[in-house]
Amino acid sequence: MNDKTLLMIPGPTPVPESVLLEMAKPPIPHRSSEFSKIFDEVNEDLKWLFQTKNDVFIFASSGTGAMEAAISNLVNPEDKVLSLVIGNFGERWAKIAESHGAIAERITVPYGEAIDPDVLRKRLDEDINKEIKIVTLTQSETSTGAVNDVKALCEIIRAHGAISVVDGVTSVGAMDIRPDEWGIDVLVSGSQKGFMIPPGLAFLTANERAFDVHKKCKYPGFYFNWSSYKKSLAQHTTPYTPAINLIVALHRTLKMLREEGLENIFARHKSNAMLLRNSLREIGLKLFVEDDNKASFAVTSVYPPDGVSVSDIRKILKDDYDIIVTNGQNDLKDKIFRIGTLGYISERDILTVVAAIENTIKKLK
Amino acid sequence: MNDKTLLMIPGPTPVPESVLLEMAKPPIPHRSSEFSKIFDEVNEDLKWLFQTKNDVFIFASSGTGAMEAAISNLVNPEDKVLSLVIGNFGERWAKIAESHGAIAERITVPYGEAIDPDVLRKRLDEDINKEIKIVTLTQSETSTGAVNDVKALCEIIRAHGAISVVDGVTSVGAMDIRPDEWGIDVLVSGSQKGFMIPPGLAFLTANERAFDVHKKCKYPGFYFNWSSYKKSLAQHTTPYTPAINLIVALHRTLKMLREEGLENIFARHKSNAMLLRNSLREIGLKLFVEDDNKASFAVTSVYPPDGVSVSDIRKILKDDYDIIVTNGQNDLKDKIFRIGTLGYISERDILTVVAAIENTIKKLK
Repeated sequence: MNDKTLLMIPGPTPVPESVLLEMAKPPIPHRSSEFSKIFDEVNEDLKWLFQTKNDVFIFASSGTGAMEAAISNLVNPEDKVLSLVIGNFGERWAKIAESHGAIAERITVPYGEAIDPDVLRKRLDEDINKEIKIVTLTQSETSTGAVNDVKALCEIIRAHGAISVVDGVTSVGAMDIRPDEWGIDVLVSGSQKGFMIPPGLAFLTANERAFDVHKKCKYPGFYFNWSSYKKSLAQHTTPYTPAINLIVALHRTLKMLREEGLENIFARHKSNAMLLRNSLREIGLKLFVEDDNKASFAVTSVYPPDGVSVSDIRKILKDDYDIIVTNGQNDLKDKIFRIGTLGYISERDILTVVAAIENTIKKLK
Repeated sequence: MNDKTLLMIPGPTPVPESVLLEMAKPPIPHRSSEFSKIFDEVNEDLKWLFQTKNDVFIFASSGTGAMEAAISNLVNPEDKVLSLVIGNFGERWAKIAESHGAIAERITVPYGEAIDPDVLRKRLDEDINKEIKIVTLTQSETSTGAVNDVKALCEIIRAHGAISVVDGVTSVGAMDIRPDEWGIDVLVSGSQKGFMIPPGLAFLTANERAFDVHKKCKYPGFYFNWSSYKKSLAQHTTPYTPAINLIVALHRTLKMLREEGLENIFARHKSNAMLLRNSLREIGLKLFVEDDNKASFAVTSVYPPDGVSVSDIRKILKDDYDIIVTNGQNDLKDKIFRIGTLGYISERDILTVVAAIENTIKKLK
């Protein structure tokens, strides 16, 4: 029986049935008061979810589009960007910066680890001429399941005077992140994660400090230009055709999230992740990232037991239990598997996946 | 009774109910053989619809994203771009080029007109040092309802040695356009048009000549980089998370379009547009663009009768008949209204809108 798929991956995450049906409504014209009303509510709710007083721009793109939008609006060729790399998505920031002609320097740690704030402080202290203009980092690194201490890192970046650009793709709506309070200058996320809708929307919020740098950007491009989104937002609309049906779906999930409340959302993700982690240990599995404030509540990476392959585990989970978990990426492929616990995931789902993994391993041993 | 909206605008266009329901299925993981199978079929069908042997890249973005992708992959700062402007979307090409540091020169005609090929030939003949690297143009100009003779213009551009970049946003899947045969180097389109699905996907095809120029592009950016899409396409996937549900919807509409056949699709759009145009004239209305091969079959612009305002016409059409037509843009606002006939529009819809317009005007006079 395989038409009851349970998605336990870090995106796309499950979408509530009521939201899927909302998405199946005929598209409404985007230049209409009907759309603008929905759009305004979505924008208010996004500010709430992002814990910011600043605008949150909505792009028709995937999360990587918002990452591009962060960099392309800030850098000029030859600018120096420091990228804190704890996995593939941290590395992506550096690649995006380079694709716009910036010079990217990386601080890299072994995958599974997080950045030591002292290492960042030391590097920035060496930058006596303040050449490093932008520092990029990731909160929850999807490829490993490790988290950075964004608050501590952004304080150091702010003290140095650089602009902090943070990937919140698998953390916004799942783990606490406070741009205004923690001094994050630019924060991005994507729809198929904590937002509980399918992929196709991405989000970006930038503060005044970031906008000041943006104004000096020579070739900001057109589609992702912050200034256009800011201007249109004040007119209750988007500069270019929005992904209407996804915004209508988001309108609904944001109401659901508001009803749950921020504290409860974060508590649910934490307790689900910890239940998963503790249960996996109980059935004898080893986790890739330790608990000491370095483990994401959005995605958990797990080693297969000795003598059992990642691909066999994934295959049995899919074939026998219709549960999808995902492989490691790049060097971690076939070395770990990853279980997503962000978005529309309940305690029952955690019990289910643990039971299924336990039985899968029994079958394979 | 106002829950049976008939969208007669040039995007979003109506979406078949079966396709809406397809879109409401839970998202499937994009890194899976199940998705790759759908994706491969979509890519084959897109090549058929675009009448090209080259790849058609799918972006999670609106049509403007594909326009950005066309320019950002080709131009270097200070490059000269010639933009043939017959309306707002022709002007958009020039603005995008400028946002990437290119120098855009415009050939502009009064709105409602198309570009005279001889004017283009004359300008390019003057460019004896071959400084003009790229020429941008629009097939069906959504803001006016005029069409350019893309075949004639692209022949001239090719003869000069420049790269032609064509906006087929409201023409692909509605009007004949043949990149390989006509020598179009880059062609873009968007999903909420002839493709009969909601907004959120955009398309771009580029030939080898364009790729040769792309290879010399210094700052192509990351999210829209052609090379990444080309590489991933060969691996049956996308470089970044695709807008899964929209691709699943597109998979279905492309099957419908293939079943109808290219000739029938173009014939339907032509006969619907001509029926609309002739009927509007019969009820005494004046059209903004004349028929002599300059009128789009995707969108028709109409003057209101003397003493009747565009806003009143649109209001009665909406309130009494639940039909949405759209206003003119910028300088044409309140001077014309526009009726979309592209995508999932039948002859019955044309009869309906004409009858409703006739009655609307009676009510207003």
